[in-house]
Amino acid sequence: MNILPLIERKKQGSELSADELSWLCTEFVARRVPDYQMAAWLMAVRWRGMTAAETLALTQAMVASGATLDWSDLARPVVDKHSTGGVGDKTSIVLVPLLAAAGLAFVKMSGRGLGHTGGTLDKLEAIPGFRVDLDLAELRAQVERIGCALVGQSPALVPADGALYALRDVTATVDALPLIASSIMSKKLAGGAETIVLDVKYGSGAFMPTVEAARELARAMVEIGEGAGRRTRAVLSPMDQPLGETVGNALEVREAIDTLHGRGPADLWTLTLELGTHLLLLSEQAPDVEQARARLTELRDSGAAAAKLAELVEAQGGDPRVVDDPDRLPRVSHIRMLEHEGPEQWVAAVDAHAVAEVTLELGAGRRVKTDPVDPAVGVRLRAKTADQVARGEPLAEIHARTEGTAAQAAERLRQAFRFTTEPAELAAGEKEVIGG
Amino acid sequence: MNILPLIERKKQGSELSADELSWLCTEFVARRVPDYQMAAWLMAVRWRGMTAAETLALTQAMVASGATLDWSDLARPVVDKHSTGGVGDKTSIVLVPLLAAAGLAFVKMSGRGLGHTGGTLDKLEAIPGFRVDLDLAELRAQVERIGCALVGQSPALVPADGALYALRDVTATVDALPLIASSIMSKKLAGGAETIVLDVKYGSGAFMPTVEAARELARAMVEIGEGAGRRTRAVLSPMDQPLGETVGNALEVREAIDTLHGRGPADLWTLTLELGTHLLLLSEQAPDVEQARARLTELRDSGAAAAKLAELVEAQGGDPRVVDDPDRLPRVSHIRMLEHEGPEQWVAAVDAHAVAEVTLELGAGRRVKTDPVDPAVGVRLRAKTADQVARGEPLAEIHARTEGTAAQAAERLRQAFRFTTEPAELAAGEKEVIGG
Repeated sequence: MNILPLIERKKQGSELSADELSWLCTEFVARRVPDYQMAAWLMAVRWRGMTAAETLALTQAMVASGATLDWSDLARPVVDKHSTGGVGDKTSIVLVPLLAAAGLAFVKMSGRGLGHTGGTLDKLEAIPGFRVDLDLAELRAQVERIGCALVGQSPALVPADGALYALRDVTATVDALPLIASSIMSKKLAGGAETIVLDVKYGSGAFMPTVEAARELARAMVEIGEGAGRRTRAVLSPMDQPLGETVGNALEVREAIDTLHGRGPADLWTLTLELGTHLLLLSEQAPDVEQARARLTELRDSGAAAAKLAELVEAQGGDPRVVDDPDRLPRVSHIRMLEHEGPEQWVAAVDAHAVAEVTLELGAGRRVKTDPVDPAVGVRLRAKTADQVARGEPLAEIHARTEGTAAQAAERLRQAFRFTTEPAELAAGEKEVIGG
Repeated sequence: MNILPLIERKKQGSELSADELSWLCTEFVARRVPDYQMAAWLMAVRWRGMTAAETLALTQAMVASGATLDWSDLARPVVDKHSTGGVGDKTSIVLVPLLAAAGLAFVKMSGRGLGHTGGTLDKLEAIPGFRVDLDLAELRAQVERIGCALVGQSPALVPADGALYALRDVTATVDALPLIASSIMSKKLAGGAETIVLDVKYGSGAFMPTVEAARELARAMVEIGEGAGRRTRAVLSPMDQPLGETVGNALEVREAIDTLHGRGPADLWTLTLELGTHLLLLSEQAPDVEQARARLTELRDSGAAAAKLAELVEAQGGDPRVVDDPDRLPRVSHIRMLEHEGPEQWVAAVDAHAVAEVTLELGAGRRVKTDPVDPAVGVRLRAKTADQVARGEPLAEIHARTEGTAAQAAERLRQAFRFTTEPAELAAGEKEVIGG
């Protein structure tokens, strides 16, 4: 086989066979297909797209490029979840111990943050001592023992994804929808879960700007999951403002802990409950929505879920006392309050992208991969969309290292808020479920 | 500047500026832009195309990548011609001495053959001793002295074209129309002619399959030429069967010589006369079509054009006696006649592609760049479209090295002919002229 006819045919819009895609993936990973030919093929895919069969075949070839996890000897049903990301999304830190407390096995592999995207790993590392780099033997032992793990993506799994992503990143082909779907799903398939729930966000604070794009991505991912014999469901939800109140690593961990204690923001708990319910139903661990929700709420209220998080933190080398005493998390000395300056008004919108940008400036994220991350800095929103605010009432807390950076951040953060003189409503946005 | 936004914007279908294209070309030639990024950009160009302004800017950037020829101190008007190629096209070998005999300067740089495309250089090298690799100083001296040259593309001119073409060749982006136009025209512009006539063929024997594609390419090239201040005109003509009677290096040189002596095939002389007329008119060396045609015919009939070819052959180290005694050209010992087997019929079509394939098999061309070329082998068609043939009458001569290869070629060559029981007509095809 030779790549040139494969580029040619994809360029013409033809469908490639599973054998051809498998060959292409294997040869690329083995570095027998040069980058320049793969780059041309990637741009042709960005142009012509891929059929569901092609996307599945490529994903399976990517999975075959490395190790896969097999949990079939585990007594618990194994579930997994992926979110396409959003500003302030700390759902995994709530959802993983909650579902593990419900008796499921939940092995969640996550990534680091770059640019506007916060990374679950960076958040977890705000917990003193917490290790995200378990090897596969450690991971298996921990999951057998406590039923869950929150770790970094293992380099042994899907090496093709790293190689392909690195090339997509420098050839303007990151935004090819079937390649996004296969990248995400290859890691889910290799992770070995039987049940996969996908949280696909759309809107100004999300990776996918429109509901149409989110729906297309969700369908592509569900088709891959189902094609590979996994129970797969995607939930589409709007995201125009940050999730919860906090953006910043330790602040978000604290909010996740608060949520497990029943004192977190409503939107975070609502999303956690929704995704958890789908996971219980899809893995046949609850008979209906009501019983699933009741069970998860009871695991929160009993403290079982918080206790599971403490177990997880301890298993991964972190200080489990943070779960009962979140003040042990890294904190800054300067907290500046941003106050509302106008007359009494309603918050019409909080621009998630702008909040992320301010948080990045404070040092909570990375502009380039090698940037260090400050665990303590960030933003806590005190007013969100549809909230009424009077003059002098708080809009947000800025957690910064110095007065100077706090003052600078305050000016920029103010621009993230839009106000209205009429009562503003939160767009409810009927949730759309695909697959399963 | 950085290539990534340029790939991104071309992918989105935006227009790049002249400065951006100039930067891209310069950095690519300097190897500061990696092949994989250029490959992605090339595929984006294949997808989105380029505007006339972009195509001109890229072409001028390519020209600026190397040396350019300046003939402004020459007393004669300098003309050039390009043909998009066709099976059996030996027009340059007739046209160049004819126009030089008319007092114009004609510096024709040509390429070698690969696959189905015959190369003018390979044809010329069938003349014993003929050198195509003049350096720029030799070239200038010869043109000053005799007014013409038939040489290889100088590596000093447009190095960007070689670099870009090599990458296009392995990334399935050869067929991007603006890149074809800029590749051809960059070499014409660097060659320094004030007047350029483009012979754009379409049909089963041509590089462009349809008249629409040929017209689009012709327009793109004329826009570049005119945009760069050259008098440029393109002539579109159909090509479904080989041009003239012969395909093969020495056989084609002999046919070109015969045509200069007034005893060549009609279609070759007709095309030569047409292109020559455009060149005379466009360079303002003839007042009208009739006088241009009369002058060129008179230069043929007087022997002046043939004498100019002998001068050119001698100047480039070849044996000038071939012009009066073409038997001095390399010849094979086996000539096998392919005869018509059916009843009296008309030739409906001669598949140029199939004839080229047979000739390639005989050894006249290259499958890969390093293949040696046999100057003597080839095919001479004795019947062409619309000719009537009776049983046993000759269809073609096969000039081969052995009886075995001749027999094999005969079987395949027979498949190139299609017959009809009704008188067949040669599609006249109104010539379309673009530009000038």
